[in-house]
Amino acid sequence: MSQTDLTDLEVAEEMADAARAAILPYFRQTDLETDNKLAGGYDPVTVADRAAEQAMRAVLAQRRPEDGILGEEFGQVEGSSGRIWVLDPIDGTRGFVSGTPTWGVLIALSTQDGPIMGVVDQPYIGERFVGGAGIAQLTGPLGTTPLKTRGTQALEQATLFTTFPEVGTPEDRAGFQAVAGQVQLTRYGMDCYAYALLSAGQADLVIEAGLNAYDIQAPIAVIEAAGGIVTNWQGGPAHNGGRALAAANAEIHAAALEILRNY
Amino acid sequence: MSQTDLTDLEVAEEMADAARAAILPYFRQTDLETDNKLAGGYDPVTVADRAAEQAMRAVLAQRRPEDGILGEEFGQVEGSSGRIWVLDPIDGTRGFVSGTPTWGVLIALSTQDGPIMGVVDQPYIGERFVGGAGIAQLTGPLGTTPLKTRGTQALEQATLFTTFPEVGTPEDRAGFQAVAGQVQLTRYGMDCYAYALLSAGQADLVIEAGLNAYDIQAPIAVIEAAGGIVTNWQGGPAHNGGRALAAANAEIHAAALEILRNY
Repeated sequence: MSQTDLTDLEVAEEMADAARAAILPYFRQTDLETDNKLAGGYDPVTVADRAAEQAMRAVLAQRRPEDGILGEEFGQVEGSSGRIWVLDPIDGTRGFVSGTPTWGVLIALSTQDGPIMGVVDQPYIGERFVGGAGIAQLTGPLGTTPLKTRGTQALEQATLFTTFPEVGTPEDRAGFQAVAGQVQLTRYGMDCYAYALLSAGQADLVIEAGLNAYDIQAPIAVIEAAGGIVTNWQGGPAHNGGRALAAANAEIHAAALEILRNY
Repeated sequence: MSQTDLTDLEVAEEMADAARAAILPYFRQTDLETDNKLAGGYDPVTVADRAAEQAMRAVLAQRRPEDGILGEEFGQVEGSSGRIWVLDPIDGTRGFVSGTPTWGVLIALSTQDGPIMGVVDQPYIGERFVGGAGIAQLTGPLGTTPLKTRGTQALEQATLFTTFPEVGTPEDRAGFQAVAGQVQLTRYGMDCYAYALLSAGQADLVIEAGLNAYDIQAPIAVIEAAGGIVTNWQGGPAHNGGRALAAANAEIHAAALEILRNY
């Protein structure tokens, strides 16, 4: 099949399939070796991260050679089309090396204005959250269902997610805690899966900090396609990373932003 | 089939199957109603919790009418056999109502000395962790594999889980934090799934507090069958609830216990 026979979404799904096949042989292997990327901390990267990104780049080399690529493990490749595929082969490697099923493969197709299509894939569960190109859907163990964010209006009825209770710097954390103190339920530890749950109408807010572009572009596309909003803590674009506020709707977004703006 | 044709493990698996069937129609339903069991806090219970416990009790009424039952939602029934089935239909209801896939159905078969067999089942992923009666195995999306805890000896190489960063009372939290400050990686938010990961050799320590008997008995059986150890923070039995320290082996257990004993 030549490159032009596939839609962008079909290319993204082929990439996600390739990443699944590359990663799953390593998941929960007790002899998995990890390298630590972070001096003075713990930011593991595994052969699974690298194999999955290479597998996705191989699909792009065949299907979309004119597009650029930005990937967590192998950096940036300029393209000629003005479009760029933004890849995180395993978002949540700390969760991956702990055996949790809430890491994901993140694939976004973006222009300079931000992502226009995204996939959040969880290979072990067999779940794929897709948004963009007129589609917002989850395919998983219970079949295929539309993604739609929910209508929670008030913080005191909201469910809030973040990955780490520590959330970035002490100032970042203070902002997070100020919102957490107002909501009904705060949950931790879900990595990119938290954004996926928001897109599926299961949560109202995700607050993170210290993000890279490849951490947030796929979630932005999926959440926006499902009716939600993602900005930084000042209400501006979040697709370049940093601090992110994802919300199920405009009202709950405004309520959280009013607090976060002060941090 | 008469009651005597099934082994205890077969009865437990039939109960877990019944709970799966009862729960999954409610999981991620956007109109799921929750009741709050906790004055001054948020401890949700859903129709799914109740339906699953009723389904499991129906299996026991047919298969093991002589055994006692202790369940989270419908209390205790005395038996005549000296054995008791200890049930938590959805451990991690806060996770359940947030759509996360890390809640579980907990089934233990116990005597007055503690659990002798346990099942931790995750219906959405289709994962079942079983321990006792000479068996320690996981059946899930990638097939069936033996459960075996790992040999990490030193806290600075250990992965630690807890459900909440808050962990019970301020004193409980101080104990948890004292251990967390020594380990390589701390992860949150996994409910009973953390114990399952420890049994599968993916983590080294789980520290929790404020547990009920039905929260911990199935994890104890699965972890012990896989080679691990579960005690309270003083090194005594944990099967009646309260504070729990689960560890992959005797050495890492001793290292964590030395710290927790002071709290």
